[in-house]
Amino acid sequence: MDLKIKKINLSTGGPLVATINKKDAESLGLFALDRVNIKSKKREINALLDISNGTGGIKSGQIGLFEEAYKALNPKEKIAKITPSKTPKSIEAIRNKLDGKELNKKEVISIINDLTSNKLSDIEVSYFVAACYNHDLSYKELTFLIQETVKDGNKIKIKKKILADKHCIGGVPNNRTTMLIVPILAAAGLNIAKTSSRAITSPSGTADTMEVLAKVKFSPNKIKNILKKTRGIIIWNETMEITGADTRLIKVRHPLRIDPKGLLIASILAKKIAAGSTHLLIDLPVGKNAKLKTKKEANTLKKRFQKISKKFNIKTKVIITDGSQPIGNGIGPNLEAIDILYILKKDPRAPKDLEKKAIMMADKIFKLTKTKASAKKILNSGLAYKKMKEIIKAQKGKSNITPEKINLGKFTYNYRSPKKGKIKEINNIKISKLARLAGAPQNKGAGIYLHKKVNDKVKKGDIIFTIYAENKDKLEFAKKESKEIIKIK
Amino acid sequence: MDLKIKKINLSTGGPLVATINKKDAESLGLFALDRVNIKSKKREINALLDISNGTGGIKSGQIGLFEEAYKALNPKEKIAKITPSKTPKSIEAIRNKLDGKELNKKEVISIINDLTSNKLSDIEVSYFVAACYNHDLSYKELTFLIQETVKDGNKIKIKKKILADKHCIGGVPNNRTTMLIVPILAAAGLNIAKTSSRAITSPSGTADTMEVLAKVKFSPNKIKNILKKTRGIIIWNETMEITGADTRLIKVRHPLRIDPKGLLIASILAKKIAAGSTHLLIDLPVGKNAKLKTKKEANTLKKRFQKISKKFNIKTKVIITDGSQPIGNGIGPNLEAIDILYILKKDPRAPKDLEKKAIMMADKIFKLTKTKASAKKILNSGLAYKKMKEIIKAQKGKSNITPEKINLGKFTYNYRSPKKGKIKEINNIKISKLARLAGAPQNKGAGIYLHKKVNDKVKKGDIIFTIYAENKDKLEFAKKESKEIIKIK
Repeated sequence: MDLKIKKINLSTGGPLVATINKKDAESLGLFALDRVNIKSKKREINALLDISNGTGGIKSGQIGLFEEAYKALNPKEKIAKITPSKTPKSIEAIRNKLDGKELNKKEVISIINDLTSNKLSDIEVSYFVAACYNHDLSYKELTFLIQETVKDGNKIKIKKKILADKHCIGGVPNNRTTMLIVPILAAAGLNIAKTSSRAITSPSGTADTMEVLAKVKFSPNKIKNILKKTRGIIIWNETMEITGADTRLIKVRHPLRIDPKGLLIASILAKKIAAGSTHLLIDLPVGKNAKLKTKKEANTLKKRFQKISKKFNIKTKVIITDGSQPIGNGIGPNLEAIDILYILKKDPRAPKDLEKKAIMMADKIFKLTKTKASAKKILNSGLAYKKMKEIIKAQKGKSNITPEKINLGKFTYNYRSPKKGKIKEINNIKISKLARLAGAPQNKGAGIYLHKKVNDKVKKGDIIFTIYAENKDKLEFAKKESKEIIKIK
Repeated sequence: MDLKIKKINLSTGGPLVATINKKDAESLGLFALDRVNIKSKKREINALLDISNGTGGIKSGQIGLFEEAYKALNPKEKIAKITPSKTPKSIEAIRNKLDGKELNKKEVISIINDLTSNKLSDIEVSYFVAACYNHDLSYKELTFLIQETVKDGNKIKIKKKILADKHCIGGVPNNRTTMLIVPILAAAGLNIAKTSSRAITSPSGTADTMEVLAKVKFSPNKIKNILKKTRGIIIWNETMEITGADTRLIKVRHPLRIDPKGLLIASILAKKIAAGSTHLLIDLPVGKNAKLKTKKEANTLKKRFQKISKKFNIKTKVIITDGSQPIGNGIGPNLEAIDILYILKKDPRAPKDLEKKAIMMADKIFKLTKTKASAKKILNSGLAYKKMKEIIKAQKGKSNITPEKINLGKFTYNYRSPKKGKIKEINNIKISKLARLAGAPQNKGAGIYLHKKVNDKVKKGDIIFTIYAENKDKLEFAKKESKEIIKIK
């Protein structure tokens, strides 16, 4: 069928999508999400079909091309020919996985290829994620998946004999060990290029917290230059990580917060391998309100990480840690950045739990890389603080920044203990939601400061936490939800 | 955040969707598929968020509203306020189902409500379908699902003491029993308002074949009028069936051809109940290349249909039939319509298998409704043919139509037997594909005519089937694929 081309000034974020009127679709026997071949005189493309059944927009006789499709076809004339085309190979593979069958190498390759080249719709990608959630990836499948994802490539590969790395699967508020481990390691002469995420459903990601002190987005060349100078860098992962396949998978995992363990392992390890990491410490926090609920679950995941890392020649140590409550006192970008500076500056207000955990983890990496150094000594001597100032400066931040210069929301509310007793629980999930209600991470100065932690004794009326907000409405909103965070016994 | 409204002249086909620039999304901490509240002076809406990261389209500071969202907000001013909003209740329920938990009534209601009111994205709906595929719906869940879908309502309910109905789950080429059963039943005085589908992945649906003879799309009032006159009607299901929830589910089942049995049962029975059907015959064809591969599978489905029909007071008979090869000789709209007319007119070229099956099924419905009548007699006496002409006339077709007046594609190819032997297999799936390659259902005169069926003896050179196409390219395309359809022993 010949149709008149209409450019649609909207991006799909990847897939080539064309839209035709419902009437034309009916007469062609085509359905939404079918594949079509679109031919102009010089080029042809395969696109996903969208059906336009609204009153405005695409009329019968027209074909609308979204930005990516228009660019790919780049038509010199006004008319395009549309015919049905075949579904991508990966569809059958996704179907098989959903049926619980083990995928072979060819099938995994077809999925990664079609993800990377944006041939699959979000619906099809969702089915793949659901399939991996209900039928976890086997060792073989995981190996193929990582191999192909790594081939898919990343934007920058750092070639060092030893490139240290760490990764935490998340779920515990604050827990900003990265911002201590990186300066400690770099001060000891190790190279570490740490890429971190922004908050998705949490009140802050390491990238958000680091951004309080410095910039987190640089070009690949700039990253290499900074690393040469400082040995350590903390940047937003979008800057240098694998895009393509992994990004597509993460997008559709977001709405239901589906975290198929196999995809989690593949996503983490593929990035580390592609970036050139040689030694890796993985932190798996366990707790009632963490991502991993039981030690058993964590142990299974630990074994899978170890087995698959070995296969790819990456020296990996996996630790299972306490994820029962937040680590550190502040929750929210500015509050967390203050915690970090307190620890580096040896301020008495420094949260001991975060400091202790960072030292333990840095020492594990020293051991793993056979580096003769003591994290505690590096921290206590001020060398880590000095290194962090270097890193902040190199990352275009203000190296003379102090905790006092970081502003907190001026609207505050103190949650006080309703009775005498001992704190039994601080709910990770609920306190994260509370910090988000208060405005974090959008409002950098918003969040929660914990004056007490689990097992601390409290008297009636003692302040347990303070809510900081940058506007009154958000404070009021958060206040209402502040009652169910803490359990006292 | 205040954003400048930009109307996007495109329909999403249901959900309210707004799109903002990637920069604004980042600073708001929002992700694709998050929910946002959009406020104009007089109204506010909740919409799904799309992120625009292309070069054209939505700039920073703008918010694009797709047709449905624009209409719902109906803004009088140029600026709208956007804030994050909560995810719908059903998300948690879908998550639970994906985890293999049994849904309670409240959860099922939340899913149906959010489907009907278009609050869920295609990704979220896909997860629900995948969940139902991997963890089939329980009796309880199915009951709730049907109850709620029925409430969701359909466009027309026919109130008769006895309203007969039939349904085949499909997968067998031709098999147009409906076009014989309806006139037979109506000639015997029974009421039957049969809604049928168009082809989705097949070369023709009953609606496509009926459309060769008459119109298949009428207003609810017109349908009631025709039924009063003729007692029988065969129309396209989009005209009168439940929309909303069911349509959303079918859309996302299409790309991977996922057919979760529970959703299949719910979809069929909810429509029949909502339409007012009192007696129902369900046909489950079984065969290597049919939807149901084994008798065991069919028996399980049969029991579920019976149990759940009883609960909803619909008298249902389920039959398991031979789905190992096409039923009838023609495959494609015109070829199938000719088969039907041959049978009704008692032409010697009539396909006996189709005739026999239709008689058997009509008799089953007579027995079910306690009607004293014989399908064979009605057919042989010419009463069924007379009734069909009445129906065709009432449905604005030409009642004097004859097989000779129906045109077939003028480009033909005869596939001849490569050896002497007996036909062992005619592959349903492959022959359907072949008919589609030849142009069906878009080209009504395209398709396949089978001269031989399974167990027929053939000599070398005998014509086994003829391909009809309306243009030469399509014939050539089909010719190439014609070798693997038939197995001869």
